[in-house]
Amino acid sequence: MNSPVYYELIKMDKHTGARLGKLHTPHGVIDTPCFMAVGTQATVKAMTPRDLSEVGAGIVLANTYHLFLRPGHELVREAGGLHEFSQWHGPMLTDSGGFQVFSLAAMNKIREDGVEFNSHIDGRKLFFTPEYVMEIEQALGADIAMAFDECAPADCDKNYAVAAMNRTHRWAERCKNSHTRPDQALFGIVQGGMFGDLRIESAKTLAAMDFPGYGIGGLSVGEPKPVMYEMLEALMPYLPTDRPHYLMGVGSPDCLVEGAIRGIDMFDCVLQTRSARNGLALTFDGKRMLRNAEFAHDFSPIEEDCDCYACRNFTRAYIRHLIKAGEILAAELITMHNLRFTYRLMEKIREAIREDRLMNLRNELMLRGTFN
Amino acid sequence: MNSPVYYELIKMDKHTGARLGKLHTPHGVIDTPCFMAVGTQATVKAMTPRDLSEVGAGIVLANTYHLFLRPGHELVREAGGLHEFSQWHGPMLTDSGGFQVFSLAAMNKIREDGVEFNSHIDGRKLFFTPEYVMEIEQALGADIAMAFDECAPADCDKNYAVAAMNRTHRWAERCKNSHTRPDQALFGIVQGGMFGDLRIESAKTLAAMDFPGYGIGGLSVGEPKPVMYEMLEALMPYLPTDRPHYLMGVGSPDCLVEGAIRGIDMFDCVLQTRSARNGLALTFDGKRMLRNAEFAHDFSPIEEDCDCYACRNFTRAYIRHLIKAGEILAAELITMHNLRFTYRLMEKIREAIREDRLMNLRNELMLRGTFN
Repeated sequence: MNSPVYYELIKMDKHTGARLGKLHTPHGVIDTPCFMAVGTQATVKAMTPRDLSEVGAGIVLANTYHLFLRPGHELVREAGGLHEFSQWHGPMLTDSGGFQVFSLAAMNKIREDGVEFNSHIDGRKLFFTPEYVMEIEQALGADIAMAFDECAPADCDKNYAVAAMNRTHRWAERCKNSHTRPDQALFGIVQGGMFGDLRIESAKTLAAMDFPGYGIGGLSVGEPKPVMYEMLEALMPYLPTDRPHYLMGVGSPDCLVEGAIRGIDMFDCVLQTRSARNGLALTFDGKRMLRNAEFAHDFSPIEEDCDCYACRNFTRAYIRHLIKAGEILAAELITMHNLRFTYRLMEKIREAIREDRLMNLRNELMLRGTFN
Repeated sequence: MNSPVYYELIKMDKHTGARLGKLHTPHGVIDTPCFMAVGTQATVKAMTPRDLSEVGAGIVLANTYHLFLRPGHELVREAGGLHEFSQWHGPMLTDSGGFQVFSLAAMNKIREDGVEFNSHIDGRKLFFTPEYVMEIEQALGADIAMAFDECAPADCDKNYAVAAMNRTHRWAERCKNSHTRPDQALFGIVQGGMFGDLRIESAKTLAAMDFPGYGIGGLSVGEPKPVMYEMLEALMPYLPTDRPHYLMGVGSPDCLVEGAIRGIDMFDCVLQTRSARNGLALTFDGKRMLRNAEFAHDFSPIEEDCDCYACRNFTRAYIRHLIKAGEILAAELITMHNLRFTYRLMEKIREAIREDRLMNLRNELMLRGTFN
């Protein structure tokens, strides 16, 4: 296989399934396990690209569904692609819109050839086929495109999960056949609902298709976390070890550690940026709702030893004031911090894998309250 | 007079009343005529202090009324003052809340001792006296505090304007008597409605009180611009030439030039930052409503020769997309640009005064469309 994106395994943790590696892409090399900041509409909310670089962002995700609706993939192509349009010159990944078509669109009707849906913005009737999604993702021009999949609900029955999985496999094949862009890698997506045997079947089927990387979709869609971990444990042995493993839409601090333990190399999540806009800061001592009165006279930084711009300069009291006053700067500062916190957590995870003590790190963080 | 803030006159324009000077303050020296960015709630909306430095901000204004209501001046004092709280380490000025009490508060009742009003946030009944406002402004700790004044409506009759002016003078005296902070200067405020003779009387009365600087209040409150210019022309000869002259709340591109021509040294205005949040960019070729469809495929920067971060990196098409998508980054980028535009305009004004060609600059800008 000759791919513009490939995974370099550096070492395995001795006591868990965790892997230390490097993800090579046309726009740079990323240490894994890695966290991808979410830039849904070709911007990580409230962040300039230079702020994003400063907090340590490596690879950034953008959403195909949103960008297709607005401003349209043709415009992004005309602008020279997502990197040029958004001025993020590091690696990028686009999801396929599969998840959004099922979760955001006003209506959706699944057929063998694709999905009919209504735009959540203006109600327009639209139709995604695997081939059309490939055209869109190639126009967007991220380093990594994801195959178009059917994301089944967490509580669907097995018959439904089987049908969705099989369709996802057929669509993956169609994506592969229509994807031609040589400087972009296409990753397949494992589905199978909350059924371990289906997850295994899906992993095997996709592994046989020889994708340069694998997403694991349809998890963290409402099921309890132990069920998600169980699914990961079932399927991970069947994914090629020389390819990156990407757990889609997952990225709370505990899940980053638990995912890494089970062999995940890539994560993405809106928690960091969305919670920032609600005044919630993530720290190694747990979450802090900075809006709360307890911080009114607190002149310490969000997190004592954090090196982000927000923590180097501003107090909790000031940031609380900004939140209460409805100031945009609150979102900017807390987003910077939450992302910086997450990249520091990923550094700790990688260091722990390097030193074969990831389970110890997990226990330390749990005791410290990082997962609260 | 021994003041921590003083004005150094460098030269007068040969053909107009314009002055080139320097404003010396405890937190630095500012070239004048200068524009003050408005940081109502101890933040210039959507800007980090470092972004603000980068665009060339010198002195920043904060609003006493807003900060008194939230987070409260005691908290700001406890934080070490506005500079420490907001991390803006350049010069700062606080207005007195006079204008806001009359324009924003839910109710106001003027008495000789002060103004009763209701908070626009929670309806609390509050009372400002000149002495109390001095206490608040000294707690906030800006380099320059403004006296508490009564801002009469643009359409008030002469009897009302006389009464408001005389009360403003008595309050100015009371402010002066109660202001004690040695590292803060107290500026008086000229009132007098839209009556040239009152404006002259007010300027003379305040000049006799020997303030280290003078605000001109109650203009740009709804009257036509020629009326404002007429008032300035009437009163300016009566303000001491060795003190800074500050035209309060005024700062559209045409007014910056016209004010400078009439001897104004300091301006402030929310136009730059507020219009940015509405997608309106200021350029030397006039205003650009970046939301408009004409910019959808426009891959040029907001302003071709502008050196701000937004113009160095992003296209109108991208910024339009951000506006349409409701992204915070739009406000950040356009605010940066609008402030940078304004500081560049002030540089041009100062350069023109230095070279005795301010009227030529005015005519060039008018022909170019800068004032459209």
